[in-house]
Order: sequence, then structure tokens, then C-alpha cells
Amino acid sequence: MSALDAALRETQALMEEALDIYLPRPAGPEARLVDAMRYATLGGGKRLRAFMTIEAGGLFGVERNALLRAASAVECLHAYSLVHDDLPCMDDDDLRRGKPTLHREYDEATAVLAGDALQALAFQLLSAVEIHSDPFVRADLVHRLAVSAGHAGMVGGQMIDIDSEGREIGIEVITRLQRLKTGALIVFACEAGAILGRAGQHQRQSLIGYGQDLGLAFQIADDLLDVEGDPETMGKAGAKDAALGKASFVAVLGPERARAQAEMLAAQAVAHLDGFDSRADNLRALAGLVVNRAA
Amino acid sequence: MSALDAALRETQALMEEALDIYLPRPAGPEARLVDAMRYATLGGGKRLRAFMTIEAGGLFGVERNALLRAASAVECLHAYSLVHDDLPCMDDDDLRRGKPTLHREYDEATAVLAGDALQALAFQLLSAVEIHSDPFVRADLVHRLAVSAGHAGMVGGQMIDIDSEGREIGIEVITRLQRLKTGALIVFACEAGAILGRAGQHQRQSLIGYGQDLGLAFQIADDLLDVEGDPETMGKAGAKDAALGKASFVAVLGPERARAQAEMLAAQAVAHLDGFDSRADNLRALAGLVVNRAA
Repeated sequence: MSALDAALRETQALMEEALDIYLPRPAGPEARLVDAMRYATLGGGKRLRAFMTIEAGGLFGVERNALLRAASAVECLHAYSLVHDDLPCMDDDDLRRGKPTLHREYDEATAVLAGDALQALAFQLLSAVEIHSDPFVRADLVHRLAVSAGHAGMVGGQMIDIDSEGREIGIEVITRLQRLKTGALIVFACEAGAILGRAGQHQRQSLIGYGQDLGLAFQIADDLLDVEGDPETMGKAGAKDAALGKASFVAVLGPERARAQAEMLAAQAVAHLDGFDSRADNLRALAGLVVNRAA
Repeated sequence: MSALDAALRETQALMEEALDIYLPRPAGPEARLVDAMRYATLGGGKRLRAFMTIEAGGLFGVERNALLRAASAVECLHAYSLVHDDLPCMDDDDLRRGKPTLHREYDEATAVLAGDALQALAFQLLSAVEIHSDPFVRADLVHRLAVSAGHAGMVGGQMIDIDSEGREIGIEVITRLQRLKTGALIVFACEAGAILGRAGQHQRQSLIGYGQDLGLAFQIADDLLDVEGDPETMGKAGAKDAALGKASFVAVLGPERARAQAEMLAAQAVAHLDGFDSRADNLRALAGLVVNRAA
């Protein structure tokens, strides 16, 4: 197993523990909601975004508990976006991480509400005094996540995605779609480590640049997987985007040029880390993994 | 027109302007999302929660722009909750504030996403440096809203509400339901003024107490309206809760005892304001209005 694989597995185990602590416990008449929040968040997931936060924060010696809390906020936000994306009125998916999607396991109303509550929880975790003694850091984290998650970020990207179904759109719109839909949260995941470490503007900008290029590379790889991947390995249905008539890099560029583009972006992502020493090696290796992953 | 009516109308006009400024402008391929966010938030609403924030902040001489920004965050959060509550998988409502509900005017996917983006926008507004120069105030606002809006607040209440449909539940569960579903955000609306004004613990607690009692009184009045109100005046369907087999104070207490309870709570809310001078008169009058409103 490579050093990266070992580090990823360690993060997965740590995040399972951390999320178990930071997610509420089912109690009272609203227990069903909390159960659903836990179902959506615990028990799997590659935790790549959490890994980015933890590794980026490690560059500045950020204390582990603060990183786990911030990474948990990122994973809660990500989990909420998956739950809402899977809804019948959106992508209408039955399977996620090899399990029934939330609205299949519970029901639609519970899925909408669990997603809503997970978004609120992300902001609760980032604004709690326990994450950092400096309130400027807490407010900065919240503000950057809010921008990344909202209309000019993740949700805006999802709107373009849904709106583009069955329509032909150009490479500029696809790039904006993906930069918002998956890129914005990946950028935040990296930037959060810099914010917690009170990094200078230059280093913070390097991690933002890394996140931007990695985010696009990740999405192109995802599009390639959708076309070429094995549904068994992925734990979700394949060729789903093509069936929905969704715009994708692969549809516009063709698989070969798309792969070349992903590799170029991954190399560019790594170049952003030039100012960091060997402590950034996991982030460097991650860029390679992202474009060559099987699931 | 009473002094309270005049002040409420002024707030409605101010909030329409403020929200127009703080909501994004439609642009780019995600314009549909922003249009929907504006549809859900602008053009009506009593703005009672905004009024609470503005009046509570006025007790401490908080600068007007900060109050309008915080009040806009509260109204965005409230608007998102209405959009998601109205969805077919929840209350399945066709009419809101006299207009088609968002999923009827647009579609379900857009309604889910617009709600999601409005929640993010609320946190963006509260964490922006423009709201207060002290980052402690910003982080405090965010944290209190996150708790009030999430699983232990508004969304938790909505879960109990949906879960209780067609089931018999006791007065304790109904009280918890309403304290979470509508009470938590009303408490936050009042507390936000105190946070922005850096009020001492005692004064902050007084406003929280006022919000708690007012919130419950408001909900009982709402239940009474659902049974007795005029759909024309309300701009939404009546007797909806009863038709859905929803738990309500009126169903358990009967209309007479429910009305007496609302009046008692309103008086209690006013008593919490004893430590404030005549600048709290609008908040005092609001308690009377809430239990005697027609819409």
C-alpha cells in the first residue's frame, strides 16, 4: 500500500469517529431526522474532501481536533448535497455508496429535511468556539463556506446541471457548471486548512489554486468513470449522466482529450504546491490518484 | 393607524429594499436559481421576524444597516423554510402569500435548490465583515442561527410535524414541535438584535424569553387562524392542518382554551420587557397584534 493509501485509510477511520461525535444522537420526537442525518453521513465515503482539509491544515501545524471538526463540516455539507441531488425531482438515484439513497431508505420529506439540517450543522460546527479561539477565523470559515455552498457555488452549479439536461451546452458553460458544482466545495476544503492555520495570503492562494485545478480534474475523471467505470466498484449506477442527457466534459471533448485535460490539470494542481516542503506530498500524490481512480 | 401599524409598514418597505440589495442579481447560466430565490423572498410577507430583529436592535442603538442585513438573513432563512415546507413531499401547498408556491411557479428541483441557496445566503449575510466590525459578534450570530435552524431547531420541528400527521400526540410533543418549528427562529430574530448590540447577559435573556413566549403565542394564533381564518385574507388555504390530520394546540385544547393560552403567553412575553423603557413599546404592542391578527 502506498503512503497515500495508508493516509487515506487513516483519514477514513478518523472521520468515521469524528462524525460520530459531531453528529447529534437520536433523541426526542425528532429522532427520525437525526437517524437520517447519520445514515447520510456515516458508514463510508472516500472522505477526499476531509482529507484535503486535514492535509492542508497539517502544512501549518493546525491542531488535530480543529481539523477534524472543520473536515466534519465539509463532509456534512457534501453529504447534504448528495442527499438532495439524489431526490426524485433531481437525479432520481436509488443507490449511493452501495446503499439505498436516503429517500429510498426513509422517504422524500425526511431526505429534504435531513439535507437541510446537515447544511445547518456544517455552519454550527464551523462557528463553534471549540474550532478556534480566534473569532475572526470562525467567521472567515463560515463566510467562505457560505459563498462556496450557495448560489454562486455548489447550488448554482447544480442548477446549471439540471437546467442543461437534454440541451447542448458549450465548454465554457460546462466549465462554470463544474467549477461551481464540485469545484467550489473542494476549494473550500483546501482553503479551510489555510484559514485555520492563519496562513499568509500567498500560501492561502496556493491552496485555492490547487483546489481549483484538482476540482476540475476530479470532475473530468468522474465523467470518464460515468462512461467507462464499473457500477459494482463505484457503488452507484453508471452511464447515468449520458442517459439523462447531461452535459459533461467527456461528451464535448471525447474521452481521449478529456483524459489529457484531466492529467494536465492534475499536474497544474501539483505545481501550486511548489512553495511547500515534503509535508505536502500527500496532497501531491492525491492529484495523481484523483485522475486515475476506479471509483 | 396605530404606531405599531405604521412601524410595521415602514419595516415592510425597508425590508423590500434591503432584500432587493442583499439578494443576488440573476446572471449567468444559473440565473433561474437566483430568479427563484428572489421570487420566494421579495414581494410581500409580513416581515414580523425582521421587525423583531430591527426593534430589538433598536433597544441598543444598533446601526440601521447592520440591522437590515441581519433581518434580511432571518427573512431568507424563513423564506427557505416556507419553500421546502410547501413541497409536494411535505405540505404540498399551491398558494403562498397569495401567489403560486415556488414549485408550482418553477418546478420541484428549482424549489429544493432555491431553498438550499437561501439558507446558505443567510449565513453569508451574517458572517460578512459588513455586518459588524467585531468578528466575535459575527461568529455568535452564525452559531445561534445554525442551532436555531437545524436539527435541534426549525428543521427538527418540521420533522416532528410531518411525523405526527394522522397520529395522536400529547401537549408536550406539540409544545416541543412548535417551540422548534416556529419558536426557534423567532427567538433568534429577537436575540440577533441583542447580539448586534452587545447586550449584557440579562438583557439578552430578556429578549430570548420574549421571543419564546411570543413564538408560542404566535403559533397558537396561527392554529386558530387555520381553523377560523378567511383564506382570502390569509393568501393561503385554510383548515389545511386539520385536513392533513396535523397535531395542533387547537385540536388538543379546543379553541377557547387555546385562545386563553395565547393571551397568557403574550402577556408573559410583554413582562420580559419590563427592564426596557418606552423604546420597547413596539415590541410590547406586537405581542397584542400577534394574538389578534386576522392573517
